[in-house]
Amino acid sequence: MPELLPRARASQESIFARMSRLAARYGAVNLGQGFPSDAPPAFLLEAARGAVGRLDQYAPPSGLPALRDAIGADLGVDGADVVVTSGATEALNVLALSLYGPREDGTGDEVLMLEPVFDVYVPQARLAGATPVTVALRLDPGPGGGWRLDLGALRGAVTPRTRALLLNTPHNPTGAVFTRAELEEVVALAREHDLWIVSDEVYDELYFGAPPVALRTLAPERTFTVGSAGKRLEATGWRVGWIACPPGSGGRLAGQIAGIRQQGSFCAPTPLQAAVAAALPVARAGGFYAGLRQEYAGRMALLAGGLEALGVAVYRPGGTYFLTAHLGAAAPDAGRLVESGGVAAIPLEAFAQAHAAPPGLVRLAFCKSRADIALALERLSAVLAAT
Amino acid sequence: MPELLPRARASQESIFARMSRLAARYGAVNLGQGFPSDAPPAFLLEAARGAVGRLDQYAPPSGLPALRDAIGADLGVDGADVVVTSGATEALNVLALSLYGPREDGTGDEVLMLEPVFDVYVPQARLAGATPVTVALRLDPGPGGGWRLDLGALRGAVTPRTRALLLNTPHNPTGAVFTRAELEEVVALAREHDLWIVSDEVYDELYFGAPPVALRTLAPERTFTVGSAGKRLEATGWRVGWIACPPGSGGRLAGQIAGIRQQGSFCAPTPLQAAVAAALPVARAGGFYAGLRQEYAGRMALLAGGLEALGVAVYRPGGTYFLTAHLGAAAPDAGRLVESGGVAAIPLEAFAQAHAAPPGLVRLAFCKSRADIALALERLSAVLAAT
Repeated sequence: MPELLPRARASQESIFARMSRLAARYGAVNLGQGFPSDAPPAFLLEAARGAVGRLDQYAPPSGLPALRDAIGADLGVDGADVVVTSGATEALNVLALSLYGPREDGTGDEVLMLEPVFDVYVPQARLAGATPVTVALRLDPGPGGGWRLDLGALRGAVTPRTRALLLNTPHNPTGAVFTRAELEEVVALAREHDLWIVSDEVYDELYFGAPPVALRTLAPERTFTVGSAGKRLEATGWRVGWIACPPGSGGRLAGQIAGIRQQGSFCAPTPLQAAVAAALPVARAGGFYAGLRQEYAGRMALLAGGLEALGVAVYRPGGTYFLTAHLGAAAPDAGRLVESGGVAAIPLEAFAQAHAAPPGLVRLAFCKSRADIALALERLSAVLAAT
Repeated sequence: MPELLPRARASQESIFARMSRLAARYGAVNLGQGFPSDAPPAFLLEAARGAVGRLDQYAPPSGLPALRDAIGADLGVDGADVVVTSGATEALNVLALSLYGPREDGTGDEVLMLEPVFDVYVPQARLAGATPVTVALRLDPGPGGGWRLDLGALRGAVTPRTRALLLNTPHNPTGAVFTRAELEEVVALAREHDLWIVSDEVYDELYFGAPPVALRTLAPERTFTVGSAGKRLEATGWRVGWIACPPGSGGRLAGQIAGIRQQGSFCAPTPLQAAVAAALPVARAGGFYAGLRQEYAGRMALLAGGLEALGVAVYRPGGTYFLTAHLGAAAPDAGRLVESGGVAAIPLEAFAQAHAAPPGLVRLAFCKSRADIALALERLSAVLAAT
């Protein structure tokens, strides 16, 4: 029997899927994969139950018009510039295929991304035929420290082959929210070298200090914004994401991107699209996101405070529902932690590419119940006491 | 502003999406895109309403274990060899990425496919870096005629670069169901040249004569079967499809394919996966597919008989919910037909690649209400009388 292609043989189980699988096997508290323990809001669920049996057939590959318009209204863009995707992962993949690829000289377009790097960025760029180039964030240790954009390193990584900058703000896995001043420098760099900006803003409503600045407001002419109903509305399994294209093409860019996107999953799930279309304005008008931020700020304080009480260095996030923490170089690695420590965490080395991550540095999700967070702290206390 | 890549600029709106859009604009009866006018069965809808609010977060990229097992039980394969995808379109794309791609000499692996060719096969192969090679079906005109596999042409198209055969049986757009004898010759060819077989069997339960032969039963060692809950359960917008891999790898092949698949839409929609898992055994035990075949056989007879009464040559299908018909060389083309004739049809030329399709030859869907079929016949009668 012939073998699968090397690109398939080389593909690995996602660290998130793996940790969730191991957490289930060993009965560990799952602070690994970023999905909430709470149910999605009732207004979303009711909308879905009403759409099932009514809107069950193919949607246009670009999305249900009602959803494109709802996303457009929410983001302040034209619905004609929006493409709905089967989750933000597909949005990122479609943009990789549309914006960067192989070059005639046998090399690939280069795309700059920040390291620690969200796990799908690198394989998606490679599948698209492009070359991922990562630029490390700086980790300032100590009180008030945290993850910072290294603008000098970013500037130094640009070559004549660079075609795009792929950023996420709020940044997963670190939780960093980049400042307006930082992003203005990023935009200046992109303009200087005529680069596309792909801005992964799936955590746009999850922040704990200053709201994140949407890159499209700084560089509308070159920014593709990626968003996620699953992250905003606590339904990560629903697979409804989006791309907002630069304005002014009269929908031409969105049409071309939808043309590539239809070769993937053809369209996003129709009844769930309809539910999200109904839910987005309700969430905005009803203060759902503010409530979510308040709730998660409380859980973040619980987890961060509990870890600090154990003597663990915590880098408190500006956004996302993750924090990074240094369990110490002597702590068990993530594999042993989930198997015998009873806690699933994502090691930062899973997000490492060109720059090694210090051992003991982990990403912990706090979109979990307070009971689970408390239990995880109890178990970590025992684990760390034994090291 | 930089431009999108040529592969994005070259991408076109799907003929199906386009015809549905035009049908809505001009108030035409939509016999174009293949989605049913009936609602999905109540047992599926109820299962979805129950899953929403209960199973809303990420599923594993390979699919919910309960769904993998339900698909395995239905197909007679091991659930460990099944990968769930966001619809069959994604299944086909994932297989393209896993099985054929660019070659070191700068050319691409060749993949043989049948022409008229289902619209996504060619662009998916190209996006994967492979070279699609189409082999025309023979159209025998006259009574008892129809679309036949041309085994000599298939054999003649094999080169040292050929890596896979991509077939669909029942075949869309023609409705042909290939015989066991034909498929045994296909298998012999694949074995002789050590080719993968990708068998798109999304219409496996929609047939009107002899049941289609599943290629995996003839060549288990090299056949990947693609299936679709949307086609089987009348919910084309739900985006739940699957790949059944060759057995005997202990799930290794499925794991590698899931690794590529997670770069696309990460996972299929979780609550809809759960609903399909519950519905598949109910559909099988309750005779749902037999009822569907009976209903569609009646609608096919209505459409085919009505067309024949208008003097149109009809090629009655052995499966799918499409028939092909020759409206005559003088009939308006599909664009004019939807705009001023009030009927949306898919011209066979939309499925042409290397071999021109005769003008006036169209694919018509009969998964539409009897009232719509009758109205379409009335309108076609007027159109054809005027030519």
